[in-house]
Amino acid sequence: MEQTLDQFTELIQLNDRAIDLNEIPWIPQTERAWFKPVRFDIATGRWINLLKVKPGGQVNRHRHTGGQVLAYTIQGEWRYLEREWVAKPGTFVYEPPGDIHTLVVDGVEEMITLFILEGTVQYLDDEDKITYQDDVFRKLKLYQDYCKENNIEMKELIY
Amino acid sequence: MEQTLDQFTELIQLNDRAIDLNEIPWIPQTERAWFKPVRFDIATGRWINLLKVKPGGQVNRHRHTGGQVLAYTIQGEWRYLEREWVAKPGTFVYEPPGDIHTLVVDGVEEMITLFILEGTVQYLDDEDKITYQDDVFRKLKLYQDYCKENNIEMKELIY
Amino acid sequence: MEQTLDQFTELIQLNDRAIDLNEIPWIPQTERAWFKPVRFDIATGRWINLLKVKPGGQVNRHRHTGGQVLAYTIQGEWRYLEREWVAKPGTFVYEPPGDIHTLVVDGVEEMITLFILEGTVQYLDDEDKITYQDDVFRKLKLYQDYCKENNIEMKELIY
Amino acid sequence: MEQTLDQFTELIQLNDRAIDLNEIPWIPQTERAWFKPVRFDIATGRWINLLKVKPGGQVNRHRHTGGQVLAYTIQGEWRYLEREWVAKPGTFVYEPPGDIHTLVVDGVEEMITLFILEGTVQYLDDEDKITYQDDVFRKLKLYQDYCKENNIEMKELIY
Repeated sequence: MEQTLDQFTELIQLNDRAIDLNEIPWIPQTERAWFKPVRFDIATGRWINLLKVKPGGQVNRHRHTGGQVLAYTIQGEWRYLEREWVAKPGTFVYEPPGDIHTLVVDGVEEMITLFILEGTVQYLDDEDKITYQDDVFRKLKLYQDYCKENNIEMKELIY
Repeated sequence: MEQTLDQFTELIQLNDRAIDLNEIPWIPQTERAWFKPVRFDIATGRWINLLKVKPGGQVNRHRHTGGQVLAYTIQGEWRYLEREWVAKPGTFVYEPPGDIHTLVVDGVEEMITLFILEGTVQYLDDEDKITYQDDVFRKLKLYQDYCKENNIEMKELIY
Repeated sequence: MEQTLDQFTELIQLNDRAIDLNEIPWIPQTERAWFKPVRFDIATGRWINLLKVKPGGQVNRHRHTGGQVLAYTIQGEWRYLEREWVAKPGTFVYEPPGDIHTLVVDGVEEMITLFILEGTVQYLDDEDKITYQDDVFRKLKLYQDYCKENNIEMKELIY
Repeated sequence: MEQTLDQFTELIQLNDRAIDLNEIPWIPQTERAWFKPVRFDIATGRWINLLKVKPGGQVNRHRHTGGQVLAYTIQGEWRYLEREWVAKPGTFVYEPPGDIHTLVVDGVEEMITLFILEGTVQYLDDEDKITYQDDVFRKLKLYQDYCKENNIEMKELIY
């Protein structure tokens, strides 16, 4: 009997994923900032992570090169030193390629935000020299190293 | 004086956006379901919306054709009739192109989920015929029509 | 010895591909049109194919829903009945989501064009009803069926 | 009279583009290499260009970070020092994020290839330090500067 297109599609399509983020650890990023990986898409270089920053913490001045960034604020307040707006729960942010900014949390509450990233994050010194950069592979290696050091099972987040 | 690449980039790059989703209305989608638009990307056909479904409500059986879907559950519980997993706050979902499913909310709490959509949503009858379809333009028109009927100012969500 | 980020990246990155399209068959699409598959990206729903149309042939009126299309003309001339321009070797075309058009080849030379497609192609009758649609899965099934029928080895074009 | 979805879509959709690449200049990139811009997508950071390299010319060792690359060879032969395959007319290439390679043209014929790029190209010295990088903005500035210096009208390639 001939295979229909619907049968073929069901057979060949990739698996869906439903990931409980409560089961994934927070990985130290800077002194008062952590990320929690959600997805590593190594076919396109995109990745998704939660970011948590304690009051007084920051993500140093950086440029997004080669891709756009989307963010949905879940908890707390944060802003970019270079911008006027303040993100709070329910604020959605779009950052265009080329954007340079410094993320700060001045409030009293820890912020948690979902970031969907394309391209590369380049951290800059005061003279705009790149000090180091984050891409999908660096984030994946940080996750791998953290799991090894802490004897935690890695989830299948490469998809 | 010559323009540096950094100066050029800052001049030419698109504007960032910070959108307070509390200022955007919930738009009726079915009897017990609403969407709240977040972004209409008419250059790529992608769109982003929050979905709210009351207990007992559902999103009828549909196929995602021509793109993948990402979802982050903010509140409540939901599942697909065709799957085993149940999404709750903090569950992240990836749906591959070709996926067919029926979204239901059995719990007692309203669910709210952020959906990032590519491609087209095709609603199917029992014989897998397409009854109608959602794409970035239909969602945008629903938003426009709702704002007109209710005398609400449209936000700039085409970006 | 600790693994550097460069070593990690080289280990984990996907394989590159170099595909000689001369080794892939032309697959009949309509009476005077053929496609030659180049890539089936089932993670995003995108696909790439060459299109060949003989003089007098056409690709019936269709809408691109849920994605954009890029095209690079390699040989011959072609146009859309609904547009003023004529594509010839070296013409690059961008088609936005939502675009509806009918491809015709009036010249004396066979046209060959590289198409990079996102979303879904919906063929429309005179009343704008969808008669059938092409997506990454239908194109892949046509390739599979053609190879089976003609006893041709399928190349690894899912990547 | 009420607006249909088809009417709304036709009204709101972006314009298509048909660009005759013969009207765009070749811009010097290195001593024996030129690029011809096709598209600058500053919303996503992607860009498209033709690359022309004379025999004996090369594109120095570089890494693609934050995005994938697609290439279609139009004329001539080329290869990466780090790979076994040789591209010739009709060879299609996929380069994954993270890939590092050095493009060389050993043949007697000028090569011309269409490249569709995401992310950022980072040129590396012998110790893998970044010497400089190409992104959509640098390519656009090179195009702008070349047109100004040579009194050539810029085409609308930002789309």
